[in-house]
Amino acid sequence: MNGLIKAIVYGLGSMGKIMATYMIEKGVTIVGVIDKNPSIVGKDLGEVLGLHHSLNVAVSDDSTKVLTSVQADIAVLSLVSEIDKLYPFIKECVCQNLNVISTSREASYPWSISPQMATKLDELAKQYNVTVSASGYQDTYMVNMVSLLAGTCHKIKSINIKSKYNVNDYGKVVAQDMQVGETIENFYKNIEKQGANPSYVRFCIEAIISDLGLTIKQINQQTKPNTADVELECTALNTVVNKGDIIGLTETVEAVTDQGVHFYGEWTGKLYKEGEVNTNECFIEGTPDVYANNDQVDPKITTCTQMINRIPDVINAPSGYITYEKLPKLKYRHFPLSTYINE
Amino acid sequence: MNGLIKAIVYGLGSMGKIMATYMIEKGVTIVGVIDKNPSIVGKDLGEVLGLHHSLNVAVSDDSTKVLTSVQADIAVLSLVSEIDKLYPFIKECVCQNLNVISTSREASYPWSISPQMATKLDELAKQYNVTVSASGYQDTYMVNMVSLLAGTCHKIKSINIKSKYNVNDYGKVVAQDMQVGETIENFYKNIEKQGANPSYVRFCIEAIISDLGLTIKQINQQTKPNTADVELECTALNTVVNKGDIIGLTETVEAVTDQGVHFYGEWTGKLYKEGEVNTNECFIEGTPDVYANNDQVDPKITTCTQMINRIPDVINAPSGYITYEKLPKLKYRHFPLSTYINE
Repeated sequence: MNGLIKAIVYGLGSMGKIMATYMIEKGVTIVGVIDKNPSIVGKDLGEVLGLHHSLNVAVSDDSTKVLTSVQADIAVLSLVSEIDKLYPFIKECVCQNLNVISTSREASYPWSISPQMATKLDELAKQYNVTVSASGYQDTYMVNMVSLLAGTCHKIKSINIKSKYNVNDYGKVVAQDMQVGETIENFYKNIEKQGANPSYVRFCIEAIISDLGLTIKQINQQTKPNTADVELECTALNTVVNKGDIIGLTETVEAVTDQGVHFYGEWTGKLYKEGEVNTNECFIEGTPDVYANNDQVDPKITTCTQMINRIPDVINAPSGYITYEKLPKLKYRHFPLSTYINE
Repeated sequence: MNGLIKAIVYGLGSMGKIMATYMIEKGVTIVGVIDKNPSIVGKDLGEVLGLHHSLNVAVSDDSTKVLTSVQADIAVLSLVSEIDKLYPFIKECVCQNLNVISTSREASYPWSISPQMATKLDELAKQYNVTVSASGYQDTYMVNMVSLLAGTCHKIKSINIKSKYNVNDYGKVVAQDMQVGETIENFYKNIEKQGANPSYVRFCIEAIISDLGLTIKQINQQTKPNTADVELECTALNTVVNKGDIIGLTETVEAVTDQGVHFYGEWTGKLYKEGEVNTNECFIEGTPDVYANNDQVDPKITTCTQMINRIPDVINAPSGYITYEKLPKLKYRHFPLSTYINE
């Protein structure tokens, strides 16, 4: 690529700040920053990131102004989890000829949850000749690594993935999604009113099934609350959760494919008690059985690293909505990201 | 692909039999079988594999006759570990317009160990419009998975891989390579006479470095014997190893790249004492640290599975010597292998 990659950071919360720092360290020029948080609007990005120099780009809460006044290659979104809420944000970026990558869990594989929205965004991206995608912890650790391990099997009966993380490692949006601090009565009322959110692990399983060339016959989800047995602090929401109230949830998904391969997923996001640790396991029952364990991997940081390492893949990809199981094998980027852009 | 994949099995030892079985189960037609073992020469493949029906192909010890009399898409080689010994076998297959995949550890990444032979085979393969490659346990578990995990890092200081397996899980060739049953005096004499074999883990590290787009500044290898502290049976050689004699070896490799990233590899092949288990670990020191553990994965079976799952990749690949870090992401093959051949 001639010259540098120019990016717009859309959402400068807990994750956005880490991603902005990584981008700068990998030679990306940040030409616009959009965030609604009044405590940072108007400030220089360098100041917000705690750097000792100005980056000559101020945080703005006026997305239209930023998107129409600067030219960039990609917008990096860390905003909301639900695709219907994210839709207008992606759309306004695409319509300014920007490639888009987002941390949204629903955006990571929207094809069966929101097929109409996914198709609309796919068509829009093709019309504007840009790519829309998403990444995060799950890109490697719950989808592409599982799929790679499946490649070492002759026959597969079932694939099981299991993951648990600490809500406090993320920001406010995730904690609210997990209904942290709600009473158990409200938890069930909310689910009755609006339905359980489509499960995070469901997107992962659907992406794996797609990557293995299989097709879904039936898929079921259950969402269960996790409650506090002692008072626990939620730093993400700056609050304390009382004994008996919600500290997170566990989603379980079971999928049967037309080809007879079964999939089981369990995903827990909750506030941790002292000493509690993350889980990331994969077990493939087949010829042979295959196990993998990545418990010690930091899910928040590897969300940010993968988002940034994916930038060249998204810029290089054909236009349309390209989910990450269809992107090339994720690569370490030792050199400035512009090095990895195809001519 | 119109029609089936036709394959020649070259080497029907311990691994070759498993691979032949997998191929048949995935719809590959085996049109030729070559092996020198007099106890199976002349027998039908179905009988040798313990099937209850004939496969209408007999084991032959005449490679020229087999290779010139049948038409096939690929030859699947499990013969020897060293590329100089394997060279004539690969050459005779390539000159009959056959794609080649082998289990040879040296063939998995011959570029720096045997650059002249690798280049010659690359040129020959291009001339005959076929692909030469290799696979095995290391394809995913010591190279492509490590490289994928590296893709979840922002910065990397060092990559450590560590593997240990039981020689008895493999055949005679591997046990002899490991000098099992030799005295410690002969072990050192052999190394003095012929030099230590280039380390298995060295090929893995070189393939990872290539895949990450880095370059080697310096690479060092040490080979140490493992001796028996109790009498141990070597089923692969049908012998008993006396106390004090060689039960295998440990290779350690340290590589420094021009880019400052360090690589450490340790690989042990030995006879196990009761209760001893395999090791397969990867630790990446960086931002963030990344760990993975696949101790429970069977290295012999996953050598055979990956060899067979790679067949479509090798047939689809451009002509030349294409090592596995350059092949597409290894995929599970639920359907007959011919399904995965590009038109």
